Amino acid sequence: MTQRALPASIPVDSGRICAELQELAAFTGGEPPGVTRVVFTHADRDARQWLAAKCREAGLETREDGVGNFFARWVGSDARLPAVGTGSHTDAIPNSGIYDGTVGVLGGLEAIRALRESGFVPKRSIELLMFTSEEPTRFGIGCLGSRLLSGRACIESVDRLRDGDGGSARDAARAAGFDGDLESVRIAPDHYGHFVELHIEQGPLLEREGIPIGIVTAIAAPASLRVAFAGEGGHAGTVLMPDRRDALTAAAELALEVERAGRESESPDTVATTGVFRPFPGAVNSIPSRCELEIDVRDTSEGSRDGAVARIVSAARRIADARSVAVEIETVNSDPPAVCDPTVVAAIRGAVAAEGLSAREMVSRAYHDSLFMATLTRTAMIFIPCRGGISHRPEEYASPGDIRAGVAVLARTLAALSSSQAGE
Amino acid sequence: MTQRALPASIPVDSGRICAELQELAAFTGGEPPGVTRVVFTHADRDARQWLAAKCREAGLETREDGVGNFFARWVGSDARLPAVGTGSHTDAIPNSGIYDGTVGVLGGLEAIRALRESGFVPKRSIELLMFTSEEPTRFGIGCLGSRLLSGRACIESVDRLRDGDGGSARDAARAAGFDGDLESVRIAPDHYGHFVELHIEQGPLLEREGIPIGIVTAIAAPASLRVAFAGEGGHAGTVLMPDRRDALTAAAELALEVERAGRESESPDTVATTGVFRPFPGAVNSIPSRCELEIDVRDTSEGSRDGAVARIVSAARRIADARSVAVEIETVNSDPPAVCDPTVVAAIRGAVAAEGLSAREMVSRAYHDSLFMATLTRTAMIFIPCRGGISHRPEEYASPGDIRAGVAVLARTLAALSSSQAGE
Repeated sequence: MTQRALPASIPVDSGRICAELQELAAFTGGEPPGVTRVVFTHADRDARQWLAAKCREAGLETREDGVGNFFARWVGSDARLPAVGTGSHTDAIPNSGIYDGTVGVLGGLEAIRALRESGFVPKRSIELLMFTSEEPTRFGIGCLGSRLLSGRACIESVDRLRDGDGGSARDAARAAGFDGDLESVRIAPDHYGHFVELHIEQGPLLEREGIPIGIVTAIAAPASLRVAFAGEGGHAGTVLMPDRRDALTAAAELALEVERAGRESESPDTVATTGVFRPFPGAVNSIPSRCELEIDVRDTSEGSRDGAVARIVSAARRIADARSVAVEIETVNSDPPAVCDPTVVAAIRGAVAAEGLSAREMVSRAYHDSLFMATLTRTAMIFIPCRGGISHRPEEYASPGDIRAGVAVLARTLAALSSSQAGE
Repeated sequence: MTQRALPASIPVDSGRICAELQELAAFTGGEPPGVTRVVFTHADRDARQWLAAKCREAGLETREDGVGNFFARWVGSDARLPAVGTGSHTDAIPNSGIYDGTVGVLGGLEAIRALRESGFVPKRSIELLMFTSEEPTRFGIGCLGSRLLSGRACIESVDRLRDGDGGSARDAARAAGFDGDLESVRIAPDHYGHFVELHIEQGPLLEREGIPIGIVTAIAAPASLRVAFAGEGGHAGTVLMPDRRDALTAAAELALEVERAGRESESPDTVATTGVFRPFPGAVNSIPSRCELEIDVRDTSEGSRDGAVARIVSAARRIADARSVAVEIETVNSDPPAVCDPTVVAAIRGAVAAEGLSAREMVSRAYHDSLFMATLTRTAMIFIPCRGGISHRPEEYASPGDIRAGVAVLARTLAALSSSQAGE
């Protein structure tokens, strides 16, 4: 690998990318300043069109697959070689920030533009990706696009997923203008030779230590569960306490067990969260007959993660028994952790050095499309700091200087990987 | 008081009222067989028009007040005397049954028709009422119409109430075609001389004991609270457990305290329910930054009810302190219990005897518009059995025979009260 073809300074335009982040933020289904961009909604579809136009303006060849994963290719001088992939997602959970995912997509585009403007000519093609539904908001499963692309998703399971209106991902993709042919999304293993994703840290370490670049060496193992308790409804005034089979109080007991499973894990890395809690009918004077929970559990150690999940599942059964309510438990996903690829990590290290920056190696506790790309090709991630470690909230913030540094490191990494020989 | 003007058998048409209950059930905002008729929605407005037409068909004079309370008057021979009121509500919580409230409104109409068909001529006018928003679904407070009518609601407090879209009751009433002049709703204390409400029991006692009529001598004291915990949101993967201030787990802890406040009360009558539980943002991979609860507490003893409320409020503060989250606590309502009027109770007893039925005296643990009418005029209630004591669910059921018996007792009670002298 060599960076000799690159100038001392890569012409990354932080004004351009920050303006584009703001433009993209305007595609939202909710009230600003929060961003709500749920997959296949109008906001998501408008954002996709805007992005595709930007990529074509930059001279890239664009295409989409059946589930709406988006590809923009800068064709290399030896286009038969496996490509170098980069990218992330642009969907956003309700009332979220403007940097999560978008910095990796617009940063990838800016890196390509900066390389092109510097006169660099790639040997391997460089391909920018925007993955469909990294966020689990609509269908309850994260990284839908990259799971399908890498062949890590079971099509039958994906077809069983439903959104809040009872619709399937396949139908929603069709309604959004894609062909919905999920079977065709899987990409050939030799399509990419490497993949690198730029992302905000979503945690406090880089800011706290004053380090501009994180080199991700592993991604924590995520799991999520859907649990539904079914008891007996009734009038809140007339059913006496001993006669009740309240689904909400069963669910409340489980939410506290979820918290304990995180707090009391033997691993300090275990996190366990109840993010969704839906009682039915949800009226102040009605005993809830049903209550649905969605639970997220993660750890860098798959064993500790599985231990916490097992504790939660057994608590759900014990609570249901003790309260004479029914319980349904569904494991939505339970993925192994990823170890990042040494070749890509080395390329990032070289880029950091060439930019004269400091960096630290770190684990990603959030999961990313890279978790699934890592099962397909040699993969690593570049993190930049975000203020206070805050993410998934309107207050999420990454500075123009940190974004510029991240994009410059990404550009040099892409250049190095694009110039690499087969097998490197 | 006399019932001599009445025939031995009142011609109550149970086929007609049961058919009308089914017709009314068709006005729903949700999926049948459940009924969802939230105040001022299309379903509610259509049901109101249908009811007004039925009342005009029956020869009654109809009017509405500023908040949509509906009145249908059978003018008596001495129309200067205070009227006899009867009625209930037709709004329904989400996915509810078809008998709660409606039996009192359509039963009141049927009683008037039956009396008219039997040749009875009232001395005092008989007025059928349909109260606006007995259910607290939309604005969080029950008996909105009868509270305003009786002057028991503070207009400033009502104006502060908001529905899920942030709208006020005044604005929603206007949008539904009423004048929204809440100040004008209060009725003169001498407008009514008596009020009697027919209702399904919403509890199991009458069915269990095989008794067709309950004579309500007291109505339990209701209270409701809104509690909101505000912590700190964040990414469910990246914020470690010791760094969290999770609003949902604080709320879960309180929901279990609410249950304990009911179970462990020194009064076996205390019931305490969390019916609404709303985390924000409500995404599986996001730590909830805010969680809102709506809590209902009742007892036939005001002291026991207040004791349970105090325990819940102090638990909310203790939980907030221990978890370093903020808490807001709002008492939406806290009403005294009602003792029913002996004159009206005696009239019901006489009607039960004339119909050759058995009855038992009982307390209503559910609250009703009668709780507020009792502060305005001499008031009591007639209960009929409902299957399994079930209410607020699609399975709610009252038999044609029990409905017929209740309407006949109501008709005789109205006739007796209508014939009573001033001061009786």
